[in-house]
Amino acid sequence: MPDNRVVVYKGPGEVAVESIEYPKLELPTDVVTGLKIKQKAPHAAILKIVTTNICGSDQHMVRGRTTAPVGQTLGHEITGEVVETGDDVLFVNTGDICSVPFNIACGRCRMCNEGKTGVCLNVNPARPGAAYGYVDMGGWIGGQAEYVMVPYADFNLLRFPDREQAMEKILDLTMLSDIFPTGYHGAVTAGVTTGSSVYIAGAGPVGLAAAHAAQVLGAGAVVVGDMIPERLEQARSFGCETIDLRLDGTLPEMIEQLLGEPEVDAAVDAVGFEARGHGKEGDEAPATVLNSVMEVTRVGGGLGIPGLYVTGDPGAVDEGAKHGTLGVRIGLGWAKSHSFTTGQCPVKRYNRQLMNAILSGKAQIAKAVNATTIPLDEAPRGYRDFDGGASRKFVIDPHGMVAA
Amino acid sequence: MPDNRVVVYKGPGEVAVESIEYPKLELPTDVVTGLKIKQKAPHAAILKIVTTNICGSDQHMVRGRTTAPVGQTLGHEITGEVVETGDDVLFVNTGDICSVPFNIACGRCRMCNEGKTGVCLNVNPARPGAAYGYVDMGGWIGGQAEYVMVPYADFNLLRFPDREQAMEKILDLTMLSDIFPTGYHGAVTAGVTTGSSVYIAGAGPVGLAAAHAAQVLGAGAVVVGDMIPERLEQARSFGCETIDLRLDGTLPEMIEQLLGEPEVDAAVDAVGFEARGHGKEGDEAPATVLNSVMEVTRVGGGLGIPGLYVTGDPGAVDEGAKHGTLGVRIGLGWAKSHSFTTGQCPVKRYNRQLMNAILSGKAQIAKAVNATTIPLDEAPRGYRDFDGGASRKFVIDPHGMVAA
Amino acid sequence: MPDNRVVVYKGPGEVAVESIEYPKLELPTDVVTGLKIKQKAPHAAILKIVTTNICGSDQHMVRGRTTAPVGQTLGHEITGEVVETGDDVLFVNTGDICSVPFNIACGRCRMCNEGKTGVCLNVNPARPGAAYGYVDMGGWIGGQAEYVMVPYADFNLLRFPDREQAMEKILDLTMLSDIFPTGYHGAVTAGVTTGSSVYIAGAGPVGLAAAHAAQVLGAGAVVVGDMIPERLEQARSFGCETIDLRLDGTLPEMIEQLLGEPEVDAAVDAVGFEARGHGKEGDEAPATVLNSVMEVTRVGGGLGIPGLYVTGDPGAVDEGAKHGTLGVRIGLGWAKSHSFTTGQCPVKRYNRQLMNAILSGKAQIAKAVNATTIPLDEAPRGYRDFDGGASRKFVIDPHGMVAA
Amino acid sequence: MPDNRVVVYKGPGEVAVESIEYPKLELPTDVVTGLKIKQKAPHAAILKIVTTNICGSDQHMVRGRTTAPVGQTLGHEITGEVVETGDDVLFVNTGDICSVPFNIACGRCRMCNEGKTGVCLNVNPARPGAAYGYVDMGGWIGGQAEYVMVPYADFNLLRFPDREQAMEKILDLTMLSDIFPTGYHGAVTAGVTTGSSVYIAGAGPVGLAAAHAAQVLGAGAVVVGDMIPERLEQARSFGCETIDLRLDGTLPEMIEQLLGEPEVDAAVDAVGFEARGHGKEGDEAPATVLNSVMEVTRVGGGLGIPGLYVTGDPGAVDEGAKHGTLGVRIGLGWAKSHSFTTGQCPVKRYNRQLMNAILSGKAQIAKAVNATTIPLDEAPRGYRDFDGGASRKFVIDPHGMVAA
Repeated sequence: MPDNRVVVYKGPGEVAVESIEYPKLELPTDVVTGLKIKQKAPHAAILKIVTTNICGSDQHMVRGRTTAPVGQTLGHEITGEVVETGDDVLFVNTGDICSVPFNIACGRCRMCNEGKTGVCLNVNPARPGAAYGYVDMGGWIGGQAEYVMVPYADFNLLRFPDREQAMEKILDLTMLSDIFPTGYHGAVTAGVTTGSSVYIAGAGPVGLAAAHAAQVLGAGAVVVGDMIPERLEQARSFGCETIDLRLDGTLPEMIEQLLGEPEVDAAVDAVGFEARGHGKEGDEAPATVLNSVMEVTRVGGGLGIPGLYVTGDPGAVDEGAKHGTLGVRIGLGWAKSHSFTTGQCPVKRYNRQLMNAILSGKAQIAKAVNATTIPLDEAPRGYRDFDGGASRKFVIDPHGMVAA
Repeated sequence: MPDNRVVVYKGPGEVAVESIEYPKLELPTDVVTGLKIKQKAPHAAILKIVTTNICGSDQHMVRGRTTAPVGQTLGHEITGEVVETGDDVLFVNTGDICSVPFNIACGRCRMCNEGKTGVCLNVNPARPGAAYGYVDMGGWIGGQAEYVMVPYADFNLLRFPDREQAMEKILDLTMLSDIFPTGYHGAVTAGVTTGSSVYIAGAGPVGLAAAHAAQVLGAGAVVVGDMIPERLEQARSFGCETIDLRLDGTLPEMIEQLLGEPEVDAAVDAVGFEARGHGKEGDEAPATVLNSVMEVTRVGGGLGIPGLYVTGDPGAVDEGAKHGTLGVRIGLGWAKSHSFTTGQCPVKRYNRQLMNAILSGKAQIAKAVNATTIPLDEAPRGYRDFDGGASRKFVIDPHGMVAA
Repeated sequence: MPDNRVVVYKGPGEVAVESIEYPKLELPTDVVTGLKIKQKAPHAAILKIVTTNICGSDQHMVRGRTTAPVGQTLGHEITGEVVETGDDVLFVNTGDICSVPFNIACGRCRMCNEGKTGVCLNVNPARPGAAYGYVDMGGWIGGQAEYVMVPYADFNLLRFPDREQAMEKILDLTMLSDIFPTGYHGAVTAGVTTGSSVYIAGAGPVGLAAAHAAQVLGAGAVVVGDMIPERLEQARSFGCETIDLRLDGTLPEMIEQLLGEPEVDAAVDAVGFEARGHGKEGDEAPATVLNSVMEVTRVGGGLGIPGLYVTGDPGAVDEGAKHGTLGVRIGLGWAKSHSFTTGQCPVKRYNRQLMNAILSGKAQIAKAVNATTIPLDEAPRGYRDFDGGASRKFVIDPHGMVAA
Repeated sequence: MPDNRVVVYKGPGEVAVESIEYPKLELPTDVVTGLKIKQKAPHAAILKIVTTNICGSDQHMVRGRTTAPVGQTLGHEITGEVVETGDDVLFVNTGDICSVPFNIACGRCRMCNEGKTGVCLNVNPARPGAAYGYVDMGGWIGGQAEYVMVPYADFNLLRFPDREQAMEKILDLTMLSDIFPTGYHGAVTAGVTTGSSVYIAGAGPVGLAAAHAAQVLGAGAVVVGDMIPERLEQARSFGCETIDLRLDGTLPEMIEQLLGEPEVDAAVDAVGFEARGHGKEGDEAPATVLNSVMEVTRVGGGLGIPGLYVTGDPGAVDEGAKHGTLGVRIGLGWAKSHSFTTGQCPVKRYNRQLMNAILSGKAQIAKAVNATTIPLDEAPRGYRDFDGGASRKFVIDPHGMVAA
């Protein structure tokens, strides 16, 4: 039986690739004891990982902005080939190539029944919702690895219909595990539809995915704001308008220059709590993005908030922020009759239709986010470059299965 | 031509009934000059007011918590009989008894087309949205009066199908102009449906209306929290469970005692920015209600926020709050995947179906909010009693048309 | 190991109670070979049946209007106590009392993911959708029995929170397996909401359930039409208006007499293909109900069609009807901009919230449908009486667990 | 004051351009007397017509398949410049170029309030819903003319934001009055969304518009079926797959050849009641399209039915069809849990967002439907060519305002 290798958090700013045990068809002990269920997992499958991406939310851990312990395994954006299945896996088979939603979900609880797989009740004794390789998310082993165990495999796995076709589009399909659905969720919950004008705050991978999702949803104008020129250029490469937030001028003014009016129909906060102030005031200002998107969203509009806000941030700028309490311009939002949708994207709600959009050529997400393949051993460099602001989405290829 | 008399703000804590001109079929000058439209209003009607209620949001002005000038006319919860119509009023006629949505709306702009009459673009040059008798809401004359002018009458007026039947249920129907739809909007946007468990923060008239709306929507359990025993008793009188927020214990604990679990499916903030702390800390704490409803709402749940949050509050406890920036536990909301709906209720979206619920006997809103009739001259006493915490909804009867 | 006894179809007009094998944790052979999946079912549970109801759709088989073979086991409205679970049943336990949705569903396919459990892709090789004890529905053993096997038990079973409370309300809760959700689905898809006026065609158990569901949804007026006086009286017993379709007069006229206008906001066809003509023309007229509900539904309204229409009806009145092709007034529907929702109710979409409505006392479905308990051995008499038009919903109590 | 000229129905197969009176700001007499409202129309505007298209539904009249009298004025797809406004037109001005929804609507009734402008209650005494230049649609003068009167102009007119930009895209914008929203409505109500596979029955202008709408909505695969090779070629010209219905083979087989499976996620019937049989049986078969789209739509799918079905068809093939009763395979639809949406498209629900999609370059509808400009005098030839199956959408340019 082969060993397994996985990316591990080694302390602020540092990750390494280490050997661990090959996965078993068993639930994590914390889940078993916390929920008093059986450890044996006949519903689980083992996947040989084809691709696994580095995510912006991994950076929160690696920057030391969470309580992740040294030794935390990393990786929740997983695509793989099924190599072993439990007795109760009936509808996926060895050899199938599948996308794994980053939200681990049981498919059997009230939240899963309602399509809210991001807050499944049966996968994390600490609170609803779980993910692979993430602090406080249930203790599941990370998937920036060679192999990974996926529980409730019939429910969680999205099988690609054709293996050869899948490998041809693998750099697009790998985005189905997290950022493409996450960006799409931001756009959908903001109300983006045919002809909408949209502002996307943040041109990191999730922001770019939200921008491309807005295009797929038929938006008329998609404007992306960021402070990193390379990222803005990336946004322009697939047809977005851009705003350089380092420049002088208010956001409404800048939007008016582009669109002829200072407001948009819908906006997405693809940044979250590690936001920095606009213009010259570059200090961390955790609610600044949220407040600015309210300012530029039309009355009656919606705000999609896929950017992460946390309940605990040891490195926060003030006492409130350490517990997730931020200075939100709720009076402005109320006056404008805004609605706000927060939380993890429930990936399963969207991944099948986005897969179809990719396979039919309707969506080109790999190009939009500048997918860049690296071997597993170069994961540490990927983390470093991404943290430095590289406008790339790093896709780890642990078995060299992706064509150059 | 008869004179008109109206309730007027005379300075903090003081209102009076004063004479003003009889209304004309004309738009307010500010609207005309700000929007560059015709002053003559062939679309308008004059109503002889049958009933007109005192609203909690009037109290914000009367307490001096807004920039309302001395002389501001008051009243936006109007029910009346049509006594004069312009040339372009085609579908309501003299003698019709009608409910007037507090949101003034043109019926012709994009927002009205989308059903968002609370943010109509054509009725207030200062910003979208208008109301009768309210500061910063377009300069429309208040309706705690004998007569009032209603613009765009075919669009704004909801005609009661039968005059006699209407007068029999007038204390219920008078709640259609604002609080019944507002409470219903809170419940609907919170996601209340068949079998839901619901927490309503605040047992003032809007809170009680939200509680009754939740019942009409089929909620299984409706729990109302407040600090005023008389209001809680009122809530119990029509079948709600109640929580006395002055008592020791956390809100989740108190809910668990009632429902067997510490969370509800949906929650409504019927308090807004003038909230006070729970338990013994009775100081004003403007985000405390919003934060507590997040705490007790289940993952994946919705929060309806009909309680008013403002962009300017001269009397606020801190600098942020003066501009409507409050310390919101957005990290908690995000972790729980909550969605939030804010803003004025678009009354027209709901008033017809709620009228039908009243006329068929399905809803008994007058009883739920303890409707209490007073003559126009006693409006000052009504304001005083209501501000003192009386668990009554005061209904002014300016022409003595309501049966004792 | 105990034997099992089950109601069996013995030929037109005849059923009997016969002994069969005690259930195993295995899938039916047809499903296994048709779908090429494992027979062993670690996901399944065995239930000791507490209550199991006779359904109007069982009558189609017993009247010989289907291709059901002699020997077909019957029963799909099952409530039971878990007595055995497979290795992959994690979240229900021995001793739990649960409702079983009549739609068998895997919880793992695209349709189940979308909440469309009525057309699950993995439970019937012949076509999407399955049920216990029904012809062409996958070969699953019927549940008018002492014991039954439920596959995908964590997904399919709805656990009642408290055993004692459940047994107190068991005659209400037993309606969660089919008719209460089915009636509710009819009402919801017809667009019934607060204040709606509603017409329900048919006062059999599904029609009465739809009527009560409309009340729970806040309808202002609920009108039920049928030709059997006893059933109409039952409808009146819980507050419905009624129309006796044997009388002279058109349906619009009769509705106008009750409501003051000849149309309703929403209508439900709770009859289906075995409909008979209105008034004196009592012959079978398979589209008559569908066409009459279009006639009385307002422009822009919705029609919920839970009444069964079939693709094959050997006993039909004409050639088209034998293949499910009926003379539908589609021109009228189009002119009125109607929308139509057909198909089996996906029970899981509604059963949890309806359970909460029952447990909180908001819904009294047993009373509405006149639930009547009988022992298993008297099932043949129950079938006979029900077919004769008795206004009762027969609930079989195979183990004498229901209090008298 | 200039005269006016308009296209007039002269008997089966014949139209002519005739002089009529210049329009007045008055309602048609039938509307006034039928609804007992004022004739004077201060809410109306006169438009100088920029473009006005020939519609497939005009052909029903011209073929003599309706009760349209000789002398019926024609034309309901109108785009024009405002040249005169009544006293109560406040928000559009002389010189504005506007699209006119073909549905005439008051903006003041319950249906308009609900966004159902296709069944407005106040514009046609015979039944809800009206249109310009159409039999049984209220007696409004047709708009294949030089000038036309538009009532309730603030509500009905969609103003283009910039005159010069509008004239550049006028051949796209002219499709906003009917076929682009109509096709979009078909696609939306069928449930078309990101990644959907879609079948469009009919490659006439509405079918092509539905196909392009499906693309704008993010469909993965759009398949169009028709019997006219030129129309199929037009569909292929903008990226659709096509099926030639004259060929042998069943529709499911043909879809399987294209998509690898015999079903689609969603389907649109863009043909309606004048349908002809598939393959060699080319006789009129009025429900054949509806039945075939059910056959190829996946379980749980939706069917959008913008194709016209009528309540009276003097030229129908059988007695039922003469009254709009067709042989519909409702048993099949029920077994597949289909939902069906019928009726006129409520143009205002979509025209603003589609305008934005056109102006931003997201939609190219003129190209999709092969817009072809002709002068008013050549309208008779346009009717003839269109009836002959020309794959063109004829746009009449009565004042020579459209650039060559």
